[in-house]
Amino acid sequence: VLARLRARLGGGPGQPGLMAPLPGEVFSGDDAAVLLPPAGRLLLAIDLVVEGVHIDLSLGSLADAGWKAISVNASDIAAMGGRPLHVVAGVSAPAGTDLDEVTDGMVEACAAYGVALVGGDLTSGRHLVLSVAITGTCDGRDPVLRTGARRGDLIWVTGPLGASAAGLELLRGARTESHSGLVRAYRRPVARVREGVVAAASGATAMIDVSDGLSQDLDHVASESGVGIRLTSVPIAAGASLEQALGGGEDYELVFTAPEGAPVVQAFEAAGLAVPTRIGICTADAGERSLEGHPLPITGWEHSFRSAR
Amino acid sequence: VLARLRARLGGGPGQPGLMAPLPGEVFSGDDAAVLLPPAGRLLLAIDLVVEGVHIDLSLGSLADAGWKAISVNASDIAAMGGRPLHVVAGVSAPAGTDLDEVTDGMVEACAAYGVALVGGDLTSGRHLVLSVAITGTCDGRDPVLRTGARRGDLIWVTGPLGASAAGLELLRGARTESHSGLVRAYRRPVARVREGVVAAASGATAMIDVSDGLSQDLDHVASESGVGIRLTSVPIAAGASLEQALGGGEDYELVFTAPEGAPVVQAFEAAGLAVPTRIGICTADAGERSLEGHPLPITGWEHSFRSAR
Repeated sequence: VLARLRARLGGGPGQPGLMAPLPGEVFSGDDAAVLLPPAGRLLLAIDLVVEGVHIDLSLGSLADAGWKAISVNASDIAAMGGRPLHVVAGVSAPAGTDLDEVTDGMVEACAAYGVALVGGDLTSGRHLVLSVAITGTCDGRDPVLRTGARRGDLIWVTGPLGASAAGLELLRGARTESHSGLVRAYRRPVARVREGVVAAASGATAMIDVSDGLSQDLDHVASESGVGIRLTSVPIAAGASLEQALGGGEDYELVFTAPEGAPVVQAFEAAGLAVPTRIGICTADAGERSLEGHPLPITGWEHSFRSAR
Repeated sequence: VLARLRARLGGGPGQPGLMAPLPGEVFSGDDAAVLLPPAGRLLLAIDLVVEGVHIDLSLGSLADAGWKAISVNASDIAAMGGRPLHVVAGVSAPAGTDLDEVTDGMVEACAAYGVALVGGDLTSGRHLVLSVAITGTCDGRDPVLRTGARRGDLIWVTGPLGASAAGLELLRGARTESHSGLVRAYRRPVARVREGVVAAASGATAMIDVSDGLSQDLDHVASESGVGIRLTSVPIAAGASLEQALGGGEDYELVFTAPEGAPVVQAFEAAGLAVPTRIGICTADAGERSLEGHPLPITGWEHSFRSAR
């Protein structure tokens, strides 16, 4: 199995969906990968995808799980305004798991984000755990942290929310026929990598990806920046509810703050990307969390599968 | 729990056993850590420690598990001739697991290796899975790969082997009173980081850490370098058997090859480290795997706990 996986992971040129190592680089097959680091600072993150917590294998495939493990990590880099470079993947799986299918999903996602899968670790285990670590670069720009929002900054979101939660609800009810977009949003979430880079370049002061739910993720930004949050509206995905848009996690849209006058709309239009929606403003009252004048419920979203238990 | 863990992971200066971020660096608390990359090439590896496969929580503590997760990764960097820089740690654990104890073991190991724990991910799960990814640097030297052994190169090992396997056997038999060194070798394996750097600097052509067992790990080097292996002797840890020294994994000593005349002994003496033992020679017959003229059994060691099932 390891030899087959290594062949998929690259090391030789010309393999589909994979980046070949540059001169001086060594990908999988040794104790560690040898990489040319980016100029400037290095981003590094790790995220786990655990069967029974983040994924339910009765509602999606092993390839979906592999896709998701890469995407949630790419989203962490996107939320810094960065571009992902390399991933290493740890897979712990029960005997009999089709590891080729897991790898297929990972490779597909790596190709989508232009990231190289450069090594990994494979072990048995009682249930499926996918652990991916990722590197990235901001290409010389400052990374966009959670701490940089200032009073008066406008709050933007890169797209409508709640699709993943709505897709999960449909799958649980086995009503999937006419809602493939929502189901796909749950099974194959897409990290907004280009959007994160454009947001950073257009003056974003703070940014986070919507993994736990808009309310909770914005609460992190507000708490760590010392500002209040006053929302005027929230874009809801077609087929989703307001509750799913506010509390449903795993949409992986980016929420960011930027000073009034920052060229957000122009920058996204120039990049050929959907223009973000302006959803509110950062206020001086650090305790404020409001939507249309009402208190914003800070609902926790302990990841899709678990929340239904 | 996350806030407590973050406090342990650093972000502020002066915390015991942890390295503080340099200006321009951001450790835990955001979507990704922001790091100053090393000059020259970057090493990157990931290794999982899984309950029921690599660890048995009835034979060691949660802190031992945390220690081990860091050490096996530091050993991957050591086996490249590198120095570990940063780790990110993913922890998936059943409800009720004492995460502070897991973190204690990780922090202790990080302090021992001078590596900074810069971020992580925490999630529930049915059994304990620790996933650590690590970066490192060779400080401008070429990394030592598994492919570089040449016929005529001498084979060296940094210390006696079999202690971890012997310690596990003692723990299973509950005979631990007079063998604390062996038990400690199993519970708290030490990555040979300084040894790896000195081996690389003294001319090592190929190197690997003894994680699966000497026979199997040397077989990797031989196969990937296209040389044969002729062993003349193997240093056995006091209290261990020859079988444990050849087939027992998880000693994390380093095995390396170097041309005759390379200043291995002098370099280790100058560094104040125990001098490695010369155990054999690389031969032109790529199929040869022998010990004192007898075929060397290439026993697999599917990690300590599992091998007893």
